[in-house]
Amino acid sequence: MADTRLDEDVSEVEVKSELYDEDGFVAREFRERVETAIAAGDSEMLREEISPLHESELGDLLEALDNDNRQALVRLMGDAFDYTALTEVDEAIRLSIVDAMPNEQIAAAVRELESDDAVYILEDLDEEDRKEILERLPFRERIRLRRSLEYPEESAGRRMQTEFVAVPPFWTVGQTIDYMREEDDLPESFAQIFVIDPSFKLQGAVDLDRILRAKRPEKIEDIMHETRHAIPAEMDQEEAAQVIEQYDLPSAAVVDSNERLVGVLAIDDVIDIMQQEADEDIKRLGGVGDEEISDTVLTAARSRFSWLLINAATAILASLVIGLFDATIEQMVALAILMPIVASMGGNAGTQTMTVTVRALAARDIDFHNAGRIIRRETLVGLLNGLSFAVIIGAVAAVWFDSGGLGSVIAIAMVINMLAAALAGILIPLVLDRLGADPAIASGTFVTTVTDVVGFFAFLGLAAWWFGIG
Amino acid sequence: MADTRLDEDVSEVEVKSELYDEDGFVAREFRERVETAIAAGDSEMLREEISPLHESELGDLLEALDNDNRQALVRLMGDAFDYTALTEVDEAIRLSIVDAMPNEQIAAAVRELESDDAVYILEDLDEEDRKEILERLPFRERIRLRRSLEYPEESAGRRMQTEFVAVPPFWTVGQTIDYMREEDDLPESFAQIFVIDPSFKLQGAVDLDRILRAKRPEKIEDIMHETRHAIPAEMDQEEAAQVIEQYDLPSAAVVDSNERLVGVLAIDDVIDIMQQEADEDIKRLGGVGDEEISDTVLTAARSRFSWLLINAATAILASLVIGLFDATIEQMVALAILMPIVASMGGNAGTQTMTVTVRALAARDIDFHNAGRIIRRETLVGLLNGLSFAVIIGAVAAVWFDSGGLGSVIAIAMVINMLAAALAGILIPLVLDRLGADPAIASGTFVTTVTDVVGFFAFLGLAAWWFGIG
Repeated sequence: MADTRLDEDVSEVEVKSELYDEDGFVAREFRERVETAIAAGDSEMLREEISPLHESELGDLLEALDNDNRQALVRLMGDAFDYTALTEVDEAIRLSIVDAMPNEQIAAAVRELESDDAVYILEDLDEEDRKEILERLPFRERIRLRRSLEYPEESAGRRMQTEFVAVPPFWTVGQTIDYMREEDDLPESFAQIFVIDPSFKLQGAVDLDRILRAKRPEKIEDIMHETRHAIPAEMDQEEAAQVIEQYDLPSAAVVDSNERLVGVLAIDDVIDIMQQEADEDIKRLGGVGDEEISDTVLTAARSRFSWLLINAATAILASLVIGLFDATIEQMVALAILMPIVASMGGNAGTQTMTVTVRALAARDIDFHNAGRIIRRETLVGLLNGLSFAVIIGAVAAVWFDSGGLGSVIAIAMVINMLAAALAGILIPLVLDRLGADPAIASGTFVTTVTDVVGFFAFLGLAAWWFGIG
Repeated sequence: MADTRLDEDVSEVEVKSELYDEDGFVAREFRERVETAIAAGDSEMLREEISPLHESELGDLLEALDNDNRQALVRLMGDAFDYTALTEVDEAIRLSIVDAMPNEQIAAAVRELESDDAVYILEDLDEEDRKEILERLPFRERIRLRRSLEYPEESAGRRMQTEFVAVPPFWTVGQTIDYMREEDDLPESFAQIFVIDPSFKLQGAVDLDRILRAKRPEKIEDIMHETRHAIPAEMDQEEAAQVIEQYDLPSAAVVDSNERLVGVLAIDDVIDIMQQEADEDIKRLGGVGDEEISDTVLTAARSRFSWLLINAATAILASLVIGLFDATIEQMVALAILMPIVASMGGNAGTQTMTVTVRALAARDIDFHNAGRIIRRETLVGLLNGLSFAVIIGAVAAVWFDSGGLGSVIAIAMVINMLAAALAGILIPLVLDRLGADPAIASGTFVTTVTDVVGFFAFLGLAAWWFGIG
């Protein structure tokens, strides 16, 4: 099929197919060609190959290179390097690239960037470097960036763009369009224009399609809509993203404590924030905190160590429970063989309930007060599956060790532990959320502690009582 | 502070503060007032209270009500009910509401909706109802919806809006603006206009802010940009969302197999898709498939059962390994007490590595071919933490059972199992991904199977050899 393509299409298709392989990863050939050019110091070839790339494509390429090559690439490309790409890579990679650049060069790069991208890079630097870089910027940019950096980390004020279009309410559509045609200093792209009074207080917003549909003499105040959902600059970025997402806003005005317009959160920022937060949730549930794939071995090992230490403590607790029944086990070694099954099934069932609960909490589908319905539901699910697996595992145990008594004991223990799993899986995240902790980060350990302890205690205790040993 | 508020602001603020409580959940008082009005059949009060709500707010309210009240609310509100809200609730809730409506009413509702929302509702209905409803629609709408429904589930064609603005390349900016001012049948909102040739083949796109900056005599073809990232209608929705996200597009053209423009994927659809996919990933990692909080007890129990059954099989496998060493345990019951620690630590470490790997695969940061670096990293992390916990747990065991031998055995087993955990945590998702399976859904069980089996075998086997028993 390829040779039937029209000539003018070929170059475009080639760039794309060269950078990525068919699975969507950076292609080995492309990476190796870049590495060869870097090794040869061939900055002309690099500019030619890399300048046409989109910032996100350049970001992917940077992630595929090793650290020395990343720094060399930035150095060799000089002015032709698109620093926006730094907002597309992991924090560890961004830092390693920026750290290798002299402050003067960082300042020159920052000047080329939109304000939100500039803040993204500046916020990771240490105080001293940041101060020196800011001082090298023109007055107006310095003031704007400094103000954004004064807002708390992960706030809307940090993520907002300080470039926006704002007009007074008494302007006509014609005046507004003429202004946009004449004015050179507009943001690179925008989806709404905002309406402000002389003190910069936010009055409303107009979507661009509304302006295009209106006649020239119409007044802006007549076609604007009130901005019921202005974002306070101090608001947490996740909360701000949720507001924009809930109300399908094309972008949102960010206001300071006096309701003055200070910036705009664009929808692509919202998408970035949402991805970041979803990633955080998944990693917290998996016990790897905020680790990134580019972290060093030591950083990763240290960040996982604390989680494993908590798990070690709870595992020892479970062992203490087993230790209570050492005499029983000594006389009936089948118990040692079977007991991990009870604990493992409980742990899995508890994790299932916990996952559903953590997601429902994140989506605000349940809270501490209206949890009754969910608790009933989960208890019933736990009971149903508890009974199913009581039959299955009970039968396996009875046949394996030729003992109806052992089958009965493990069956009852299974029902008890599945019920405990359901209750722990729902109550632990609910209580953690109520106490202001992130249920995603802490629930896992607590839930499996409960299912281990209850599982071993119920099974070994019942066996000791049933067979009268220990 | 409240009494200093200006009069005109009060009503707006009140609606908001009444619907949600301070934690962002639907407030109990609001829900109870609605429930009272439903019980009294007071449709006038319901219309007054509920009509001002945003579709997403109405969706939250529906989720907070029980099923009978949901259906009654829709019935009592009649024409005043905003059916867009049905796209904001869980599938189970949507179905229960729609199933209670006569087809005639569904057809009337569908006619009021944008095409993507209409498809959202129609796709869940059974074949016969869908056919009857479509037949009640005007010809043009019927054709459009039918075409959307012919695309595969979860494809871009299903999620696209078939309403869009398209103009020929030779039009001027002035002509285009005049057209938008005169034409009544424009989409409710749009972020780009598309450029097509007479056969509807896509030529390019123009962002609205670009039009507003251009002078009236400028030609559209001179200000348009090529749409390098047109989305084939058959493309999976997740892949389409990734393209739009990667290139920060305000919206994307959807084209059929002849490259003719058939619809547009708006950015808010992209956000919905991304949320849905993140939710799916988290639930799959937690072993609850695509379960929703509104699923019935039986549906939930059944969907979790299969996952638990796999886990039961692997738990029995681990028990078989323990069974190999029954004579050893009989002589040294401390082994039974300590063995869950080795398995549990391995399981947790394996889950950590697996979580990092699954996320890196989803973000396309690693693949089968360039995994060498990550495998080295994870092996080193496993070795480091394995050594740390070998010392900690080894010391605990040695003191607890007053046996340096036992401490040494558990320490060595710990290092072996943490290394196995690291390798399983990275290789299993990589291989599953390579085989085309979703690593999020299947990796968990395989990884803990490996860490259980290796953990028990290493610890008990070493003990049998060290102490010469069994």
